[in-house]
Amino acid sequence: MKWPITSAALALCLLAAPAHADGLIDNVNGITLDEDGKVVRFTALLIDRDGKVSQLLTRKDKPPKQLDYKTDGKGMTMLPGLIDAHGHVMGTGFQALTLDLSDTSSLAEAQAAIAAYAAKYPDRRWIIGGGWNQEKWGLGRFPTAADLDSVVADRPVLLERVDGHASWANSRAMEIAGITPATKSPDGGRIEKADGKPIGVFIDAASGLIQKFVPTPKPAERDLALAKAQEILLSQGITAIADMGTTIDDWQSYRRAGDDGWLSIRIFGYAGGIDNMVAIAGPRPTPWLYDDKLRLGGVKLYLDGALGSRGAALKAPYADAPKEKGLQFLASAELRNLMVRAVMDGFQPAVHAIGDAANAEVINAVEELSDTFTGDRRWRIEHAQIVDPVDLPRLGRHGIISSMQPVHQTSDRLMAEARLGPDRLGGAYAWQSILKAGGKLALGSDVPVEPANPFAGIAAAITREDANGAPFGGWRPQERLTREQALAGFTTGGAYAAFAEGKVGRLATGYRADFILINTDPLLASPRDIRATIVEETWVGGRPVYKRSAVKSGNEDSQDKTITGEGR
Amino acid sequence: MKWPITSAALALCLLAAPAHADGLIDNVNGITLDEDGKVVRFTALLIDRDGKVSQLLTRKDKPPKQLDYKTDGKGMTMLPGLIDAHGHVMGTGFQALTLDLSDTSSLAEAQAAIAAYAAKYPDRRWIIGGGWNQEKWGLGRFPTAADLDSVVADRPVLLERVDGHASWANSRAMEIAGITPATKSPDGGRIEKADGKPIGVFIDAASGLIQKFVPTPKPAERDLALAKAQEILLSQGITAIADMGTTIDDWQSYRRAGDDGWLSIRIFGYAGGIDNMVAIAGPRPTPWLYDDKLRLGGVKLYLDGALGSRGAALKAPYADAPKEKGLQFLASAELRNLMVRAVMDGFQPAVHAIGDAANAEVINAVEELSDTFTGDRRWRIEHAQIVDPVDLPRLGRHGIISSMQPVHQTSDRLMAEARLGPDRLGGAYAWQSILKAGGKLALGSDVPVEPANPFAGIAAAITREDANGAPFGGWRPQERLTREQALAGFTTGGAYAAFAEGKVGRLATGYRADFILINTDPLLASPRDIRATIVEETWVGGRPVYKRSAVKSGNEDSQDKTITGEGR
Repeated sequence: MKWPITSAALALCLLAAPAHADGLIDNVNGITLDEDGKVVRFTALLIDRDGKVSQLLTRKDKPPKQLDYKTDGKGMTMLPGLIDAHGHVMGTGFQALTLDLSDTSSLAEAQAAIAAYAAKYPDRRWIIGGGWNQEKWGLGRFPTAADLDSVVADRPVLLERVDGHASWANSRAMEIAGITPATKSPDGGRIEKADGKPIGVFIDAASGLIQKFVPTPKPAERDLALAKAQEILLSQGITAIADMGTTIDDWQSYRRAGDDGWLSIRIFGYAGGIDNMVAIAGPRPTPWLYDDKLRLGGVKLYLDGALGSRGAALKAPYADAPKEKGLQFLASAELRNLMVRAVMDGFQPAVHAIGDAANAEVINAVEELSDTFTGDRRWRIEHAQIVDPVDLPRLGRHGIISSMQPVHQTSDRLMAEARLGPDRLGGAYAWQSILKAGGKLALGSDVPVEPANPFAGIAAAITREDANGAPFGGWRPQERLTREQALAGFTTGGAYAAFAEGKVGRLATGYRADFILINTDPLLASPRDIRATIVEETWVGGRPVYKRSAVKSGNEDSQDKTITGEGR
Repeated sequence: MKWPITSAALALCLLAAPAHADGLIDNVNGITLDEDGKVVRFTALLIDRDGKVSQLLTRKDKPPKQLDYKTDGKGMTMLPGLIDAHGHVMGTGFQALTLDLSDTSSLAEAQAAIAAYAAKYPDRRWIIGGGWNQEKWGLGRFPTAADLDSVVADRPVLLERVDGHASWANSRAMEIAGITPATKSPDGGRIEKADGKPIGVFIDAASGLIQKFVPTPKPAERDLALAKAQEILLSQGITAIADMGTTIDDWQSYRRAGDDGWLSIRIFGYAGGIDNMVAIAGPRPTPWLYDDKLRLGGVKLYLDGALGSRGAALKAPYADAPKEKGLQFLASAELRNLMVRAVMDGFQPAVHAIGDAANAEVINAVEELSDTFTGDRRWRIEHAQIVDPVDLPRLGRHGIISSMQPVHQTSDRLMAEARLGPDRLGGAYAWQSILKAGGKLALGSDVPVEPANPFAGIAAAITREDANGAPFGGWRPQERLTREQALAGFTTGGAYAAFAEGKVGRLATGYRADFILINTDPLLASPRDIRATIVEETWVGGRPVYKRSAVKSGNEDSQDKTITGEGR
């Protein structure tokens, strides 16, 4: 498998960056939260030689006279670097390097894109990619192998659904994988069939039947994907991301970037299962590496699937499929065993739970384990989309962190109503209820399942309206967050969820100088303007790692430019 | 599997070490080689704040007055830290933590040791260890499962031969592994049989049939083994070691030590095969990490077995087994493919070759590849024990590095004569002939196959006599090295072989201040005194990492004490 970008693309572009020194970013509309979560405004930021914040200044403060550099913020809004509390770093890079169908709005449009891609890359042995969503296409059914065969029949094609919980294969791919009408669905997965024949769609674990025949990316390709992911995230104002499902191969790529000086974003690693956890970190979480840029501190466990593919485990059957209640991948005892295995050695479990049955199961487990494993555990539930209202108070009782993605709510709205019916939405994407119950929130995007853009996330969080303003007034608007709560979710909430408070998430003395300069004030601007926020600069650890001006004046080939080197 | 030392043993012991600062080690009998390989003598060493040598001083030089610390060398001899060009770091640690039979001189003595060990550790599910040598026992045959069953029958036992090329199992272990008379020898290995029944000894790849049932060590146990290996090596004056056959699990342990600040020895990693190479380093060698303490720069490939087990690949049959010519694990094309795979991405191949056929094969491969892969490749042959004299000139022609272990010669002498007969010894352990032919030498121990002690290595190198002075005058004495050549082999030779010249191996301005203080001058002392050398202090990067005085006055439980922390 070859990738469109050659290794030369890794050649690092270093803008004239100030060396570590005492510096001042002046004339900004600075916003941060203080340790009590209150908004603090300031007009200038003083950075020390270690790349940490030395002081926030207001108009009345006099900046020191001895400065190594001074930058005019030109009145732009300065925020702490935003933290995506749930994303997939390598997936983000690979999605950008492979066929991306996330912008297609019909099957025909997708078919055209696939045909064009196949023509453009005649030497790729497999056509891989993802981003399709039959709901968005209004297809009313899954796409089929035949739909793919009509555009690419000579080579295998395997395309992931936008939520990562289903794959769409053509006949050639099924042939290579030896899939026949007799092939049985594996545990935790389902081969979609019609008249007893596989139609070409494979749910959850069934994807693996074909996935295992796709050539694995080489280390150099992984490094490219990491570089691409950094470029995408930093250009959108994200300075740190919780990487959900880090594998040992991903980790080695992160370490190469750290060792070679081009790791610019902070990655909070959550290993993909216990085996990866042990392979990566061994007997305990890694220390914070590369000036707090990288740590493996937890493990991602999967308890159920997704709502769209009816894999989310529900207490009662799906409203639109009365015989199905979803897939719970782990028995109660298995979940507890895995959580215990992690927690015993000081790792933080982050359990994927979407359906109300899965969420109740995680909460039950936390409830039982909390007696034995006391201390500051910060149990995390990833997504926590559908929580039975009776379970909400228990989230608060155990200080459980709900790691949620506001844009999922706006994307899923109609689908969730179809899957659940009208009477089970009381704890659906229930951000405000979770906070009121004393639970903790960390917000993110689930990139590449949704685009990373955190401003779309903030806008969705405060409106529960989609990009078109629908539904007017917001879906179940009582669950909207205030602007301050939304900002906290993408800053202090994400830091706390990864044991990184005190390092990042706020701008205060001693914190890493991670910040962005943007053209809107998210505490004042309209949701529409927030969505349209332009990130002018992104700084990590007191160094500029993205400047839009460098993009505009720079290489025409590149839509945006990221500073990934640190000039070793 | 549990290990005798608990995690608490990892608690780091930090002697009152000077912080990085300008320091002087005064009043020493300093010896180093200069860049032309000539001996330089000096009386004091000046160390800078980065832990590098700033100056060598002689009596006539005035030391600077402004010093952060000053240490009296009390007239001791100072050498550059010694480099073991071929060892197995984790194996060294694990050997020390498991049953070690290397000191036993008869089967009965070994059986007593095994019985005692089994009684001491009743909770170990497997009894594992190694170090046995039926030649040393004068047994005249391999030991058998029955020999083991008579002392341990209830639990599986698996013990490696001293050279790592054979394993000895009891009946319980064979039962667990499902070994029966019908079990066939795998490729590259041999199940020793008598009357068609497996006797309990498994040669080379056949060891894997049982090995795969032994529980693998956990990361915490690996870390213990690394800590133990450092303790052993540093206390013997070894400050750097080429680790032959690094696995991804080994590597993760080295990184944990580096990340947590307790990596004290320098490890030049050679990955155990291409898969480990890719998993560890990816698309190119890693950078030098942790102030030049760790790098994965090459790959270890196995071409043949060992002479003792008649696995070494010979051009003509064994003198004492006329139907056998040894085992060549890779076909010519396979060897070339693996070497190309490594060299294309800038990795350095280090090929294990012991028999004359294997050595000729590697030289042939280098000869062919040298046309395509020009530049500074530093092709390495590990062991290079039996080279056909006709092939010797070709070692020089291609600048091939022979990485050899002087003590192997003294241990193997009689066995080599038996295996080869009198007429094939012209290129046996032919150190001086290799140098005369223009080849390069790097010396080491192959620890834990032989003890690490580099002074035993130097003594063997200059005498070709064993510890008892036999044979008087040395075995094939024309191959003895001069004292300067032997010192070079354990310093500059090992550095060059690992692309570490300019960093370590000499004491000169800008080099890492790695040195030892010892009680003998190896350029003047008798071979007997050289063997008995006492290492008083070992320093790495300008910090003391071992002091014998701390051991003598320290904890009685510990025979020697190593400073493994750096006080972060």
